[in-house]
Amino acid sequence: MTRHPAVVPAPAMMHAGDGTFLLGAGVVVGGEAAASALCTELLAQRTGLSLEAGANAQISCTLIDDGEPESYRLRVTPEGARLEAPDAAGLFYGVHTLAQLVARHDGEWILPAVEITDAPRFEYRGVMLDVARHFHGVDTVKGYIDRASALKFNVLHLHLTDDQGWRLELSSRPELTGSGSGTSVGDKPGGYFSAGDYRDIVAYAAAHHMTVVPEFDVPGHTHAVGLGYPELAAPPAASEAVDDAVAEFGGGMPTPGVPYIGLAVGFSSLIIDSAATDEFLADVFGELATMTPGPYLHVGGDEALGTPPADFAAFMARVTTLVAQLGKTPIAWHEAGAAPGIAPSTVGQYWGFVTPTADSAEKARAFVTHGSRLILSPADAVYLDMKENDSDRLGLTWANGPTSLERSYRWEPTSIIDGIGEDAILGVEAPLWTETIVNAADIDAAAFPRIASAAEAAWSQPEQRDWESFVVRVGRLGPLWTRAGIAFTPLPAVQWAHDEE
Amino acid sequence: MTRHPAVVPAPAMMHAGDGTFLLGAGVVVGGEAAASALCTELLAQRTGLSLEAGANAQISCTLIDDGEPESYRLRVTPEGARLEAPDAAGLFYGVHTLAQLVARHDGEWILPAVEITDAPRFEYRGVMLDVARHFHGVDTVKGYIDRASALKFNVLHLHLTDDQGWRLELSSRPELTGSGSGTSVGDKPGGYFSAGDYRDIVAYAAAHHMTVVPEFDVPGHTHAVGLGYPELAAPPAASEAVDDAVAEFGGGMPTPGVPYIGLAVGFSSLIIDSAATDEFLADVFGELATMTPGPYLHVGGDEALGTPPADFAAFMARVTTLVAQLGKTPIAWHEAGAAPGIAPSTVGQYWGFVTPTADSAEKARAFVTHGSRLILSPADAVYLDMKENDSDRLGLTWANGPTSLERSYRWEPTSIIDGIGEDAILGVEAPLWTETIVNAADIDAAAFPRIASAAEAAWSQPEQRDWESFVVRVGRLGPLWTRAGIAFTPLPAVQWAHDEE
Repeated sequence: MTRHPAVVPAPAMMHAGDGTFLLGAGVVVGGEAAASALCTELLAQRTGLSLEAGANAQISCTLIDDGEPESYRLRVTPEGARLEAPDAAGLFYGVHTLAQLVARHDGEWILPAVEITDAPRFEYRGVMLDVARHFHGVDTVKGYIDRASALKFNVLHLHLTDDQGWRLELSSRPELTGSGSGTSVGDKPGGYFSAGDYRDIVAYAAAHHMTVVPEFDVPGHTHAVGLGYPELAAPPAASEAVDDAVAEFGGGMPTPGVPYIGLAVGFSSLIIDSAATDEFLADVFGELATMTPGPYLHVGGDEALGTPPADFAAFMARVTTLVAQLGKTPIAWHEAGAAPGIAPSTVGQYWGFVTPTADSAEKARAFVTHGSRLILSPADAVYLDMKENDSDRLGLTWANGPTSLERSYRWEPTSIIDGIGEDAILGVEAPLWTETIVNAADIDAAAFPRIASAAEAAWSQPEQRDWESFVVRVGRLGPLWTRAGIAFTPLPAVQWAHDEE
Repeated sequence: MTRHPAVVPAPAMMHAGDGTFLLGAGVVVGGEAAASALCTELLAQRTGLSLEAGANAQISCTLIDDGEPESYRLRVTPEGARLEAPDAAGLFYGVHTLAQLVARHDGEWILPAVEITDAPRFEYRGVMLDVARHFHGVDTVKGYIDRASALKFNVLHLHLTDDQGWRLELSSRPELTGSGSGTSVGDKPGGYFSAGDYRDIVAYAAAHHMTVVPEFDVPGHTHAVGLGYPELAAPPAASEAVDDAVAEFGGGMPTPGVPYIGLAVGFSSLIIDSAATDEFLADVFGELATMTPGPYLHVGGDEALGTPPADFAAFMARVTTLVAQLGKTPIAWHEAGAAPGIAPSTVGQYWGFVTPTADSAEKARAFVTHGSRLILSPADAVYLDMKENDSDRLGLTWANGPTSLERSYRWEPTSIIDGIGEDAILGVEAPLWTETIVNAADIDAAAFPRIASAAEAAWSQPEQRDWESFVVRVGRLGPLWTRAGIAFTPLPAVQWAHDEE
């Protein structure tokens, strides 16, 4: 029996047809070079078949003149598969859809007949990787680009700096990595990206139709800055909120000048009202802007728990204005919405809960009031480092306790914040914080399958999203993920498929 | 029904017992710190269970006073599992055996009752990764260490240099990487390890009980040296053997001073009789010796097809003597056996076929005649980059055509070279050359499952090795490999298992 086609994230329109197209050694793949090469590679990885490249192709990838950016049309009949898109990104997404359609049927590899018309709901579809709490090297980041782009994410946000380390080498401030990158959480080895490493990542992301959004998190989360530049660091703050964070996450308070290897947050700050700090910001964001071809620079702004509100507001206004003057669009975590003077173009990233507090909703709405938009990262739905069960080895539980796959799936972007509808939402982003995540296998185990929930929230139209359908469709990706070396967690909520013999 | 325990490589002695030990949230793991932490991690990765650490453990890992190096005893009963070993490596191997025993039974995770006494056949059990043809970064190398050490390999041989690039930064000769590392085969991006990267790899290998054997391949395979140091490079050699290699592998002859991105071999050489070359060798092997805590330095010596035999012999004598004087044991590919003056401690690495030519057998025997031993890497059995089928996307076929899993398995080390028995064999090594292997997923697809054949040739006693048993045992590792994110190729010769619900 032919299986019903299963695609994640759900396409805008999909109709199953009659029959199947048989994949075999004689099948020819042709058309646009990058897309047909990717198609051959993905089909080989999935099936072991080595298809031919050439003209008169049964599987064709063609650029056409009309259609929205990133959209595609895919039609599979018993005679072959025809993919059309107006741009290279659309072909790329269509090829990944085609690879998901491959199935085992009566001992043969087939594509089920289907007609798909697809385009994204949101223009910004992000994943974030924290390379500061534990450093993750170039190969691991490339692997995450492979994984995320296959689910039609188009932004890689790199959280490059935190109390535990500064992970991007800058010629303007060499001691940031020279003194500030030697360790990770738990005194594990540190590390950093050279300028060449960063260029390599940006280029690899671009080849996978992803934009890199680099983040230097200021004014808090900056203990590591003080290791190389002690004149910039305020003394560790002692406030009730900081005490609570230290008590909840552990690792104690830091000692100035000594690398921080604990998990607490909120204690550190750059000195706010200082010409040296302004010079530092101009250096590091200036250099970052020249290294970054994409339109966004993320300035952080979260959890500055020990910084007085007026100081925080003044600082966020200055740093977002600086980034705007550098010709980039600033992004800040939603706390910066409390700063009335932020650059009006600043995009807010909301990381509160699916049911917001009045305070976090108000701060998030401020970005829209200023004329910009929001990225939604509700922590109790799309923070990929949240545990599924209390007993899990990896992950944390502070975001409303463990997060089930179902909870990660069942939320609607326009229903989070009162007054924030479709037009005010730039997109959806799924962060992966790495306090407990040490290597590539840990990243996979934490992110998969929950990353698929976030992919569907970012790409699929609300009327195509359905939990019962999702657990079947995700389960059908199991063999594809296994062939790609993705160490996903086989959650029991999913009906995991195996290839028939 | 309880499954019969399946372990790869096959242990020296294994008896199945009655019943099973039930793994569940209440189970406590204790004993030696590193082994019990690894055990908890591997069981969590395999099952999702987060076991407790502590005293009165049902799963215990204990150092004892007697036993051969790297050996262990493991006894599983319905009450628990007791692992004992005389050293940390033995505990490490015992834990990996235990992780392989985990099975799904009536909806629960269990260990079958079993008694295992195990120790390696050969002291040198190696994998080689070519980071020269395509560069593979630190994370990918660490991932390969994870994978190989879990199969009880204890040597990582890094092929650090070749015509296509020099991949280790040296302060004595900065232009080796400054000018000689920018590209890979097919004009893909290059790369290199900094000294810190190399230290990081060596430390990670040591933590996984693997010794790093670094190779600078001389006098041939050195086109990249001439990019930064043209005064050291002989003109590309034109000989019949070189012409044949260029015709077979493609990519044409190189141009001096221009990076080589083809696949041919044999055309390049350092200038042999030159004070500048001797100074270069003293610099690079001297620096490599100080960076390398392990006992071996590999000097290459293969495929110097354009170098006159007398020159080659003189050169290999000089470079092996240099390495011996640096306090290290030289390793050379078997061609160096033709050089009568090589340092007597030089270990030979045989890379001919399972059925040797008279010439290659004679050269290999010379190392033993000199008083040293051999590492066996028969190319038509354990070269992991050989294709399984002609139509495969990855790999080459020059070693007697495609290599089936069965052919990779069915060979016996003492039956390869006449006169070379157990005592003359230091060990077995499985190289992975990367002309066609671009990233970590490619490495997995090429190496797995064939790497398991090599593991068994290196570790297991001949009387425990059996092809029919092997294909069942390897198939039982499928779910374990999937959970570890290993993108193995699901060859049809193997009976791949899936976890029961």
